[in-house]
Amino acid sequence: MRHHPTAQVVNIHDKYFLVDCGEGTQMQLRRYKVKMQRIHHVFISHLHGDHFFGFNGLISTMHLLGRTKPLHVHAPSGLKLLFEAQQAVGEMRLDFELIFHSNVCQEPRQLYEDNTLEVWGFPLDHRIECTGFLFKEKRRKANISRSAIQEYGLTVSEILSLKNGKDVCRIDGTVLKAEELTQMAPPGRSYAFCSDTKYSERVIDAIQGVDLLYHEATFLEDMRTRALQTHHSTAKDAANVALKSGAGALVLGHFSARYVDETPLLEEASAVFPATILAKEGLVLVPRGEAFVTEL
Amino acid sequence: MRHHPTAQVVNIHDKYFLVDCGEGTQMQLRRYKVKMQRIHHVFISHLHGDHFFGFNGLISTMHLLGRTKPLHVHAPSGLKLLFEAQQAVGEMRLDFELIFHSNVCQEPRQLYEDNTLEVWGFPLDHRIECTGFLFKEKRRKANISRSAIQEYGLTVSEILSLKNGKDVCRIDGTVLKAEELTQMAPPGRSYAFCSDTKYSERVIDAIQGVDLLYHEATFLEDMRTRALQTHHSTAKDAANVALKSGAGALVLGHFSARYVDETPLLEEASAVFPATILAKEGLVLVPRGEAFVTEL
Repeated sequence: MRHHPTAQVVNIHDKYFLVDCGEGTQMQLRRYKVKMQRIHHVFISHLHGDHFFGFNGLISTMHLLGRTKPLHVHAPSGLKLLFEAQQAVGEMRLDFELIFHSNVCQEPRQLYEDNTLEVWGFPLDHRIECTGFLFKEKRRKANISRSAIQEYGLTVSEILSLKNGKDVCRIDGTVLKAEELTQMAPPGRSYAFCSDTKYSERVIDAIQGVDLLYHEATFLEDMRTRALQTHHSTAKDAANVALKSGAGALVLGHFSARYVDETPLLEEASAVFPATILAKEGLVLVPRGEAFVTEL
Repeated sequence: MRHHPTAQVVNIHDKYFLVDCGEGTQMQLRRYKVKMQRIHHVFISHLHGDHFFGFNGLISTMHLLGRTKPLHVHAPSGLKLLFEAQQAVGEMRLDFELIFHSNVCQEPRQLYEDNTLEVWGFPLDHRIECTGFLFKEKRRKANISRSAIQEYGLTVSEILSLKNGKDVCRIDGTVLKAEELTQMAPPGRSYAFCSDTKYSERVIDAIQGVDLLYHEATFLEDMRTRALQTHHSTAKDAANVALKSGAGALVLGHFSARYVDETPLLEEASAVFPATILAKEGLVLVPRGEAFVTEL
């Protein structure tokens, strides 16, 4: 195994979301100087060890470092059971609240929402229940240029109305049209995480138009039989998912340890979907604007 | 945390014994090129996370790499429970046998024995049940010099008798004295591992005359109150254990993360017991002859 097991941090305006938590995640967070106490939500796709064996250690360390803020964990319900059993045998108690939410779903459903972001879960097709995650930034409010503000001497309440798309009618009868004075913000960015899955049309439906797609590519096409048996994807499968979902870019990961050189995986996928790169430790992905996803 | 959590490999003539298994142990085994499939026995001192969170991952990887040889695990019984719960939620099955043995003891007791080695468990004094381990090589058979073999024309069966300390009486009435023709082999080496414990006279009794002692030194003396509260040792405690047990050398470990510079811990211990060194990742300890203990 040349790679660390799966873990990523999604950073939305300095709110951190940890996605999967393989063994050694806490060490990788330190290595890449990602402040672990900024993590408010953890999403675990499924309960195979390479996706969650770092969870108990991360939580212990958060506790030792004095965390008091609650932490939300979206995972199959077995994770709560395993965590509580481990706390019991070690006679440990946390100084912060750990709030478990089951993320298992048969259809896409919203797991989280705040002012700027929605996170959706959708079913992957693996040997055990496994959930993919779609992070969707909300579109920000419309912009008003500084020159328009000066030209019309806009008040704060007028600016807010216009940004919300409402026209302003002044006492003197002047009508300021939102449509004319504002520019729509660009659409929010989106990121889809498909950890362990075989090729699935349902995944394609769930992530239509995603900006950035992480998709597993455990095997090359010449191991298609093995891929189907183990409910994993080939690099070509991943590329087809990217192509058919209209993704902006594709990141391949979860390579079988048999591939010492991963170039053939990249080549196989790129032939179908050119905007493909290979995941590796420390990779920071910036779809537009600020840093977004860090691979651990 | 600058250090990896606790894990060591004790190598007795290329039989590997893993002692504790903190998170990331499998990565450290790879880093230091220790062949994990050579591990036949695992000893876990207690069920605080920094001593066993790497266990499930190590076992999974042994399985993925095709292990078929059984593995013996000497640990508190909770480890079996946690391992089996994790296998159940992940719907996993091992292709090799994992044989759990409880190592909890109120008095020193033998946990393992073969032709060349004994391993004893002894109680440490920590917040939860915690076991120290004493590895004792058996004394090898006596040596006969090549010149004695030639001078007396010794047969193979005569050599075996003499090595076993028995005199040989030849048909011509000659008596070959074992005492005169053989040289006793040097005594076997010994290694004691005291993972998490406050200062304990019972530990001193259990490890009398040990060649090499690993003892935790979480704090300096100025934090004695905290050490007592948390059932940990100061560096001076560890040195006193080494001194009073007549140890040959002391390795300090398990330092609190508050010590960015560990020199004061070394100085505090060395003032009491000069033959002291600090544990660090990759350290290989060779008490006499071949490599013996690797810190992970």
